[in-house]
Amino acid sequence: MLDFPTIQGRGFRNVFEDGRITGFSFQLRNPNYRGVAASLLDGVDVVVDGERIPDHVPLWTLQGRTFTLDELRASTDVRWHLDEPATITVPKAGGLSGGVHQLEVVVHLRRSYFPPLIARTPFTSTGTGVIVPPVPDGGLRFGVSTYSYSGDLYTSMTLEDVFADIADLGATGIEILGEGNVAGYPSPKPGWIDAWRGLLEKYGLEATNFGSWVDTTRWHDRDLTVEEGAEQLQLDLRLAHRLGFTSVRPKFGVTSWELDPHPIWEGAVERSLDLAADLDIVICPEIHAPTPIRHPVTQGYLDFIERTGTKHFKLLIDTGIFQTAAVRDYAEEIEAEEGEEVPAHLRPLAVPMADLVEVLPHTHFIQAKFFSIDDDLNDLHVPWSDIIPTLQQAGWSGYLSSEYEGLREPYRGRDQVRRQHALLRGLAAGR
Amino acid sequence: MLDFPTIQGRGFRNVFEDGRITGFSFQLRNPNYRGVAASLLDGVDVVVDGERIPDHVPLWTLQGRTFTLDELRASTDVRWHLDEPATITVPKAGGLSGGVHQLEVVVHLRRSYFPPLIARTPFTSTGTGVIVPPVPDGGLRFGVSTYSYSGDLYTSMTLEDVFADIADLGATGIEILGEGNVAGYPSPKPGWIDAWRGLLEKYGLEATNFGSWVDTTRWHDRDLTVEEGAEQLQLDLRLAHRLGFTSVRPKFGVTSWELDPHPIWEGAVERSLDLAADLDIVICPEIHAPTPIRHPVTQGYLDFIERTGTKHFKLLIDTGIFQTAAVRDYAEEIEAEEGEEVPAHLRPLAVPMADLVEVLPHTHFIQAKFFSIDDDLNDLHVPWSDIIPTLQQAGWSGYLSSEYEGLREPYRGRDQVRRQHALLRGLAAGR
Repeated sequence: MLDFPTIQGRGFRNVFEDGRITGFSFQLRNPNYRGVAASLLDGVDVVVDGERIPDHVPLWTLQGRTFTLDELRASTDVRWHLDEPATITVPKAGGLSGGVHQLEVVVHLRRSYFPPLIARTPFTSTGTGVIVPPVPDGGLRFGVSTYSYSGDLYTSMTLEDVFADIADLGATGIEILGEGNVAGYPSPKPGWIDAWRGLLEKYGLEATNFGSWVDTTRWHDRDLTVEEGAEQLQLDLRLAHRLGFTSVRPKFGVTSWELDPHPIWEGAVERSLDLAADLDIVICPEIHAPTPIRHPVTQGYLDFIERTGTKHFKLLIDTGIFQTAAVRDYAEEIEAEEGEEVPAHLRPLAVPMADLVEVLPHTHFIQAKFFSIDDDLNDLHVPWSDIIPTLQQAGWSGYLSSEYEGLREPYRGRDQVRRQHALLRGLAAGR
Repeated sequence: MLDFPTIQGRGFRNVFEDGRITGFSFQLRNPNYRGVAASLLDGVDVVVDGERIPDHVPLWTLQGRTFTLDELRASTDVRWHLDEPATITVPKAGGLSGGVHQLEVVVHLRRSYFPPLIARTPFTSTGTGVIVPPVPDGGLRFGVSTYSYSGDLYTSMTLEDVFADIADLGATGIEILGEGNVAGYPSPKPGWIDAWRGLLEKYGLEATNFGSWVDTTRWHDRDLTVEEGAEQLQLDLRLAHRLGFTSVRPKFGVTSWELDPHPIWEGAVERSLDLAADLDIVICPEIHAPTPIRHPVTQGYLDFIERTGTKHFKLLIDTGIFQTAAVRDYAEEIEAEEGEEVPAHLRPLAVPMADLVEVLPHTHFIQAKFFSIDDDLNDLHVPWSDIIPTLQQAGWSGYLSSEYEGLREPYRGRDQVRRQHALLRGLAAGR
């Protein structure tokens, strides 16, 4: 699917020629209600961050071919379809900096059936786009969770659009919600699995973490047993393996406001360790606010690792635990306890970096949870300028997987993920 | 694709059992960020037009199977996927009246990983839905133009979603924009044509009118010739025929503020009449504001019919010519001439019904143009209570094809089309 705004989220990037940046490009949806022969296009004005580029300067790419305005006017066999974006390339030595840029675009189109005086119609669009710099060298890898696109996925994005968005920002890993993104879960058709593997290959992504749930209140009149919990986890391990994932995060039900996991967790995981080893999948419990690192729950996981000596059970850190400010605009309304202003899991825990350093040797995966990044790439809640250097100094390698959990307005998640990657990669590159 | 709002536009209808209306049903998108086992569902409160139905009363349909709340709780093999709507059926003798209804829906869901006190989570959604009554007996047929979904199509609707929307409201005809909805226009792949015909069959729709454009300013330095105009029209006639359409509306370029068609129209059409007869397709020039019926342009078309004696050239009436009030909120900004408040084609022409009656024998198709219908089914601009009885008294038969041209906010076109069908069918049934 295309974005509803004329200026598309995907495709905004610097253009390289012979190793030098010679300009930038972005994509537009046809703003008219019908497709047109490209010879009816009469130029595009572009204003980027206040700098105006006249309508005859940008190049147009349609159906894989690139044209000057004069070439477009003379063209006989190219069209701008409603379901195909046009790529606009603007010459600009050095291109644009990583981060958010203001764009104003006026597409001029001759419409024969409008009175001659107004037949050259301007279609004006304004918006912002995010230039995402390349992934810097080092052990940090960059991925995205489909959770970031909740609400958008299946309404204005197909699963393939998710792949396209992730690949477009130069990330390499896709994390999914098992019961959510696997069609016909828990028994996808073989054709779906083939299509999934085809998408991984087409977009050059690797399957990272598979979100699993062990719903201890699945039955309204009794809790799930250890056997049932193990069955659920093993079902997801097998499914994750068929889809090429390397870790599974089981989310067990909880029994307290501090998110103490249901006691079946330990037995269910222990019964699944041999299978995890066979499949070479790491089972990752999630350290998630309001549970910090120095806490009996986290300690219980570390004790389990020590006691079993397993290599297939490691921590998953959700960066919400490092929050330094309370979140006001989050994905869904959760009622706070009486007398509280902010629900417990959204209050700033501000876990210190020293605690993170201590558990990094046991940490397999990081969900880069965030809520809001502004136009100047300031994250309003999560202290990335502490987290990224800490990971680098400890020599940690692994995935930072974007998990946007802010407001669920259409397109917002996609834009915020681009902002987060621009921010994190800039910090990782020492900028 | 599903609608972003939890309460879906499609699927809101009365439920018939043994010929009696026993209730109503509607569809919901899963409001959670993940799919769930149906046993975790804990009921749904429904408030319709202020009347509250308790959470244990509605029936749930998931994956083609219908459940009471107790059956859901005990279910072991059914789930509410993110990409599948649930159908909620509410018992109510006599159902709901045709038109707009207010809905408030609270879905209750047990989420094991939330603290026990708040683990039964309410997801509240409010909105409106439109009950569309069946098509009444008589010669009037009801269709929809894809133009109504401009902006939505390819961003939050696939072409199949358009079929599904049209079929869901009980209409029988689909009108398209040739260069716009035919993938790879003007040369769709054979597989696309097969898929198109498959959709017509699957949704029980017939292809009505095919929108064609003869862009007389296609070349920036000269006008299109008669030969080129005829070539374009014939290309569209052939394509329309392959797709099963029965009429083609060519929109020629114009040469004046009154929309006088470019003089090539007559030669281009005349050279195409034999082909139209061979294919049994009616070529339909569009009578569109600011051109009324009593006008040299319309008279020119009637003279052409008389002179050629053709049965394959007839009028298409756009109901914008009957407007009694100026439109303030329309699909796109068109600049008015200096000193004018409203662009010429949106000023109310208020063509009298007597003029319509005169040309009805030469009228093949009606584009039911409209801009805004309120919650009480009042059209703010087009006098349907005059138009519908006029068509019925004249014994006219043919398609009224919805052409929504109001504001292009996502989902608005879909909702407005449902309102228009409820309004027009009510009038046609004498209500």
